[in-house]
Amino acid sequence: MDGKSRVIFQNTMPSRRQLPTSCLLIYDRILLRSFRPWIRSFTFSYGVKAGEELKQLSHFPEHVTKLLKINEQMQTRDLTIIALGGGSVGDFAGFVASVFKRGVPLIQIPSTWLAAMDSAHGGKTALNAGGFKNQIGSFYPAHLTFICKSLLLSQPVERGTDAVGELHKTVLLKGGALWRKCKDSREFSARQIYQLLPDLIRYKHSIVQRDPYETKGLRLILNLGHTLGHVFEAALARSHGQAVDLGLVFALEFSKSRGHLSEKSYARIMATQFGRSLPPLPTVGECLRQVRDLERYITQDKKLSDGNIRFIFLNNVGKPIIEKTAVQEIVEFARALERKA
Amino acid sequence: MDGKSRVIFQNTMPSRRQLPTSCLLIYDRILLRSFRPWIRSFTFSYGVKAGEELKQLSHFPEHVTKLLKINEQMQTRDLTIIALGGGSVGDFAGFVASVFKRGVPLIQIPSTWLAAMDSAHGGKTALNAGGFKNQIGSFYPAHLTFICKSLLLSQPVERGTDAVGELHKTVLLKGGALWRKCKDSREFSARQIYQLLPDLIRYKHSIVQRDPYETKGLRLILNLGHTLGHVFEAALARSHGQAVDLGLVFALEFSKSRGHLSEKSYARIMATQFGRSLPPLPTVGECLRQVRDLERYITQDKKLSDGNIRFIFLNNVGKPIIEKTAVQEIVEFARALERKA
Repeated sequence: MDGKSRVIFQNTMPSRRQLPTSCLLIYDRILLRSFRPWIRSFTFSYGVKAGEELKQLSHFPEHVTKLLKINEQMQTRDLTIIALGGGSVGDFAGFVASVFKRGVPLIQIPSTWLAAMDSAHGGKTALNAGGFKNQIGSFYPAHLTFICKSLLLSQPVERGTDAVGELHKTVLLKGGALWRKCKDSREFSARQIYQLLPDLIRYKHSIVQRDPYETKGLRLILNLGHTLGHVFEAALARSHGQAVDLGLVFALEFSKSRGHLSEKSYARIMATQFGRSLPPLPTVGECLRQVRDLERYITQDKKLSDGNIRFIFLNNVGKPIIEKTAVQEIVEFARALERKA
Repeated sequence: MDGKSRVIFQNTMPSRRQLPTSCLLIYDRILLRSFRPWIRSFTFSYGVKAGEELKQLSHFPEHVTKLLKINEQMQTRDLTIIALGGGSVGDFAGFVASVFKRGVPLIQIPSTWLAAMDSAHGGKTALNAGGFKNQIGSFYPAHLTFICKSLLLSQPVERGTDAVGELHKTVLLKGGALWRKCKDSREFSARQIYQLLPDLIRYKHSIVQRDPYETKGLRLILNLGHTLGHVFEAALARSHGQAVDLGLVFALEFSKSRGHLSEKSYARIMATQFGRSLPPLPTVGECLRQVRDLERYITQDKKLSDGNIRFIFLNNVGKPIIEKTAVQEIVEFARALERKA
């Protein structure tokens, strides 16, 4: 943000010469399996178990106490926090960096495809509280992000699947050349995803730069597929990728039903390999049926004023629109889709 | 900051028309004694016990859980947090505002002189952790600050004494007309302090605006008297005002000893009523004798790189200078002062 966030693509992990002198590495412990020597090269480091539990606000004081003890040994307050891990580690370490001594520089080294294409960019950090996700957080862009091919390719294959939801979302939002690159793909290999990363990251940066603090509404378009996506994630414990894919289908159907997306454009999207790779309607209907208290989930998750949320529709590929929509209407459409599907 | 922080001086508490529709008031419970009807006019409010305990990071998750419950009843995320209280309430509520749903607008209504002239301005929010003050926090300026005469004058007289340390500091830093206004005063009545508030606040804003995130070093000059002040506060449990006054005498003596402040200028300051109201040297010496582990206190408190801190000296009234100084030299001068005093 503010032109400060740099992204470096490279094959290997950053060398010590690419990093500041005083670093505190916060890393996903599971990466010790493949990157032990690199992690152990840091004098000051803090291993964590990745996952939503790491982001629990209730554990935060304990983490901070330990990090302050490490920092005391460092004999300096001019430290940089390096976050090595997936989304939960990035969210957690990013939040730590944003409030530690009122903010210290942050370097992100995402280890999952999802973090590499999405969560490591845009400066959102977050903790979970009160039973809901991301209730506490900050806008704190990384000063530097390393996209390391060897790290990303070392991840289990499922990680790629996890990321496909966000990839699909960005392709639908951006359209143009990115759509043409992707529309004939039913699946994306790890190497294909890696090839697409610069496009995906550039698109996210372009949106975030115009609305870094999500105050102008512009940034909201990145929520395409997420209103229902977050519900499926929270209520049905789906992976973020699966949940967003389900949410994208909902958004496409809803866009068509509200007359934003023409039948013709809808059919054209669905006829591509890309469209065929999205979850089928009956699956979406089945998932909707399983959610109890849909209204409450949507209400808690989104910026709500007077029972309305700003829902992201598609006019066409590459043409998102934001429209104030009553939560009640979304719930009614969901009920209709359940019956239809 | 960024020209966004407005300060409104008025006799009475803000009317509801001066405040946004969706407010969550975080208030010092002790103010229910004098301002119950005003506080009770808020549908959503959260009373706290002021003091350092409130700022303990370990209690933070519990506070947040309760605040999220209140927010759920509000049915909106577009809330504004109002902080009504002294420094600890402002630090706490300011931090809450900065991280609640990644940041909501903040209005400060300082109830103590110290908060009204200092801590409510400049955007520093903070919690205590690991046994040290202000280890966790953010730069998050209030969007609006109300300085209410009736509120400030309702405070016990000691509160005025608490604030005098910061008042003395600003007078020495700013010099000029403010020095001429204050140099013949040995004491400041509540009404006199109120008269001085616009000058004191304007000075702080002028410095903070040039260095909002304390990255350029400029803002450091506001630490005059605070290197030792924070030590006396932490180690000897002195009030912030008393501690800063002791720290100012240390800074003046240290400035003279290092040749920054001439004997003549020093004598001229000390000959005024203002100078005579500062703690006498033997008292400072006695306090220094009582501090064990001075080096560790200074090290933890300040931005340290390689055993040096940036100490604020005075060249003269209105002429602060920042100089990199070894913690060891400060400790040695403290030992010398102990012997001399």
